[in-house]
Amino acid sequence: MSLASHTRRPAAPPAAELTGAMFIGSRRVTGAGAVAHSHDARTGQLLEPAYAGGTPEDVAAACQAAEDAFDTYRNLHPWHRARFLETVADNLTALTDALVARAHQETGLPTARLTGEIARTAGQLRMFAAVLTEGSWLDARIDPAQPGRTPQPRPDIRQQHIPLGPVAVFGASNFPLAFSVLGGDTASALAAGCPVVVKAHDAHLGTSEFAAHAVRAAVVTHKLPDGVFSLLVGDGPTLGTQLVTDPRIQAVAFTGSRAVGLALAHTAASRPQPVPVYAEMSSINPVVLMPGALAERATSLAEEFVASLTLGAGQFCTNPGLLLAVDGPDLQTFLQTASRAVAADAGATMLTPRIAKSYRVETETVASHPSVQVLARGAQPDSAGPGQAVLMTARAADVIADPDLQREMFGAAALVVRCDDPAQLAETLRRLEGQLTATLHTALTDTEDARALLPLLERKAGRVLANGWPTGVEVGHAMVHGGPYPATTDARTTSVGSRAIERFLRPVAYQDLPQELLPVALRDDNPYNIPRRVDGEASPRPGS
Amino acid sequence: MSLASHTRRPAAPPAAELTGAMFIGSRRVTGAGAVAHSHDARTGQLLEPAYAGGTPEDVAAACQAAEDAFDTYRNLHPWHRARFLETVADNLTALTDALVARAHQETGLPTARLTGEIARTAGQLRMFAAVLTEGSWLDARIDPAQPGRTPQPRPDIRQQHIPLGPVAVFGASNFPLAFSVLGGDTASALAAGCPVVVKAHDAHLGTSEFAAHAVRAAVVTHKLPDGVFSLLVGDGPTLGTQLVTDPRIQAVAFTGSRAVGLALAHTAASRPQPVPVYAEMSSINPVVLMPGALAERATSLAEEFVASLTLGAGQFCTNPGLLLAVDGPDLQTFLQTASRAVAADAGATMLTPRIAKSYRVETETVASHPSVQVLARGAQPDSAGPGQAVLMTARAADVIADPDLQREMFGAAALVVRCDDPAQLAETLRRLEGQLTATLHTALTDTEDARALLPLLERKAGRVLANGWPTGVEVGHAMVHGGPYPATTDARTTSVGSRAIERFLRPVAYQDLPQELLPVALRDDNPYNIPRRVDGEASPRPGS
Repeated sequence: MSLASHTRRPAAPPAAELTGAMFIGSRRVTGAGAVAHSHDARTGQLLEPAYAGGTPEDVAAACQAAEDAFDTYRNLHPWHRARFLETVADNLTALTDALVARAHQETGLPTARLTGEIARTAGQLRMFAAVLTEGSWLDARIDPAQPGRTPQPRPDIRQQHIPLGPVAVFGASNFPLAFSVLGGDTASALAAGCPVVVKAHDAHLGTSEFAAHAVRAAVVTHKLPDGVFSLLVGDGPTLGTQLVTDPRIQAVAFTGSRAVGLALAHTAASRPQPVPVYAEMSSINPVVLMPGALAERATSLAEEFVASLTLGAGQFCTNPGLLLAVDGPDLQTFLQTASRAVAADAGATMLTPRIAKSYRVETETVASHPSVQVLARGAQPDSAGPGQAVLMTARAADVIADPDLQREMFGAAALVVRCDDPAQLAETLRRLEGQLTATLHTALTDTEDARALLPLLERKAGRVLANGWPTGVEVGHAMVHGGPYPATTDARTTSVGSRAIERFLRPVAYQDLPQELLPVALRDDNPYNIPRRVDGEASPRPGS
Repeated sequence: MSLASHTRRPAAPPAAELTGAMFIGSRRVTGAGAVAHSHDARTGQLLEPAYAGGTPEDVAAACQAAEDAFDTYRNLHPWHRARFLETVADNLTALTDALVARAHQETGLPTARLTGEIARTAGQLRMFAAVLTEGSWLDARIDPAQPGRTPQPRPDIRQQHIPLGPVAVFGASNFPLAFSVLGGDTASALAAGCPVVVKAHDAHLGTSEFAAHAVRAAVVTHKLPDGVFSLLVGDGPTLGTQLVTDPRIQAVAFTGSRAVGLALAHTAASRPQPVPVYAEMSSINPVVLMPGALAERATSLAEEFVASLTLGAGQFCTNPGLLLAVDGPDLQTFLQTASRAVAADAGATMLTPRIAKSYRVETETVASHPSVQVLARGAQPDSAGPGQAVLMTARAADVIADPDLQREMFGAAALVVRCDDPAQLAETLRRLEGQLTATLHTALTDTEDARALLPLLERKAGRVLANGWPTGVEVGHAMVHGGPYPATTDARTTSVGSRAIERFLRPVAYQDLPQELLPVALRDDNPYNIPRRVDGEASPRPGS
């Protein structure tokens, strides 16, 4: 696909000053609602500037701007949107120093991790630019007319994807860049042709404002309609609910807790016109240690496990929170090594004092369960929101008996489930709720038993891993970051990887439209030069 | 793709006697619930045999049989399922005489239409067999490992679609074959690898039992697990609710009224584990008559319109129930011709006396609206469920003012909306709810104005037509029979055409699985010989 007609424009340098104002399209608006501040995650100290929450009028204005932008934005040449996303990535990269410094303050996450997260976020935007350029995302199809068919002639029917409309995005606290203002939800919605209204996460307001600068500057550079992107500030129960119930919003994307995800889903389903909610919620990511694997490498498995468990203070949706194994000497070796490693863990500052408190409550609820034994605790760091690693164990019969032992402890806590035999292990898996991931550690001798477990793991999770750890989610074309309820509200989708764009699209068929009325992507001469299916068969692109 | 290894087995002759028993897998079970009968649609006379409704235990048994069958059935070679679907089509075709005779009695639909519907239903099953054989439905993807990538190596990640699990199907009354026991929902769910539990529509119980024979015989022929298909009898509020709330059911497909569709969606969303509901509900299918088209051919448009309106007593989801045009002499010509044609219409027996009564209530509600003028009524046929064509008109300002004038009148009734100017016509369209279809009639002189309306029509409907009529839904690869709420509960899907299979699938990623544990479709040597995407790029099949 030739890009000759689309030269790269120089990026306008995004402003790097925080003001505390929202973006309603290009308008900087200081809210008239409750004032919020971010806080230094380690010291608890209040950070400037103040962010005043948006009013119902601000929400309506942002949604109307998005609606006004929609038809123009969605009908741009897809390459135009691709160049826009690349400029957003460039702008984001240009802001690295300011973003890392602020995000480090606001989240307590290490600067190296945050620098990597910016690269991931920019890479994600560029991946969607490549997706737009390649063209399969439109899923263009042509079933040509058959005028001579009997008993009735067949009309000409063509199909493409069109975007749903304005999208509301609620970012996650644990990835202030990759799952926030410019994260995968925003990138995939913008790629699809949907204007986006983001509600900033109140734990990283400054990081959010910087990220919004990056996209707003790109909107100007590419002369896009003003309402393509807005950033609102406010609390979830009021402003968030107003946003989700606004009739102009046509889909909602969210990453966070189960309680909030379900509340959003309920709100969206109760609208006069219900809209889809893509909520990525809770997962405890079961890991099965097969007997051969334990016999072969119990010690190294334990070390790898604790490294995965404590990474980022355990604040990953894919954190390995539940291990399952048949009890015996090899599992005991594993537990001893893992206990030593957890006890040696220094702990880390959690994203917010509230998350740290919730983590303590969840772990203490599980730890005080009569069937649970605490094996080890790490150190408690000196911090406003200290995160202390905890390793616990319970017998499978007790886990089967009490579903409450499946509760997510968002942080570096795990429960090791000791099973009497492989059948009980399988039964424990069968009782689990839906998950983002499920992992098997195997040796060659485990192959047959592992194969028997796979149908069960497939049904429970969006991603099945062998001999690895679930933390770390590749951004690619084959990734699924999703899974059966309650891991997400829609198991048919992914929030990471190129097919995340599908969440914001729907197919439309066009019957017997004359060439001059057909969408560009479906015209006979294939002006976008994209792959199309003719009578269900892939058709080579003219240019290839 | 060579089929040499899969020889066609001779179809077992399906039994052609009605017994009044349900199928719980292969078991013939006579219910212990309330007894129901079908009725002759024209005479109202009760038809034998009696069908006794299933108990909660029967529902649970059918769902358990489906669950027990699931893993075996979904892991069959897709060609095996393809041959099964072809045998179902053969069996259905072999039953044509018995099916047409019974369906004609039960529905009042003409025998020629029913014969055509059997061909359509069999064709639909064969289309899904071809889809399974071609292989794109699996959407297999491979992102190969990059062991040398820095800072971290990239794992090997592969993806395929897997089926959701057992599916509950609720057939429609108006297509006793193509949207019922063996209709598009069942065909696409079985193709996807999902066992199906059908609740028979109580308006065509005998037709349903015959159709179930066709699939049960094919289950035996192909030695499939017993619970792949069950047929239950019972009423919607009790047995239907039990079916939708059964924890083994993982998706629901429905075609029918908005009230029932919304009730099912609410029930499914209230489960401990919510599941998707694909309900195809109500649509009034707006048709815009552009000024140039009216000037050029008002008379022929009127004749075509009334033919489409009265086809099948107007009992199509895609019936043209709302026409829009700018008022003037050409529209008056159209209305005069259409009125004459409606007045000359003989009427027809509707599917059931209940549907006929509901149609009378709906049309009288609209006809008695102070803003509505009745232009013509057809004859009232002598029948237990008489359907009388009705043509009405109202001013656009009144339709805009009262959303209740958008109500669906399921039958041969239409409202012609007279607009003052093109802007008011566009505003009326903007106020419409979501639709299955939206149609434009244009002349060359209308091109610019029609193009301006297209973004609006796309947003309102799943299918946009030019210069045709929406009744008649092609079964192909580009068809969308779906649309924004309340046309359906999920605008991202279609219930007709090859992509209907997508409703019952979800993606799963496999990370670093050794070859011997990978799903067959994803192994290096591509044993199914299907198209796969490697790093997002289409990869040629080895055999092509």
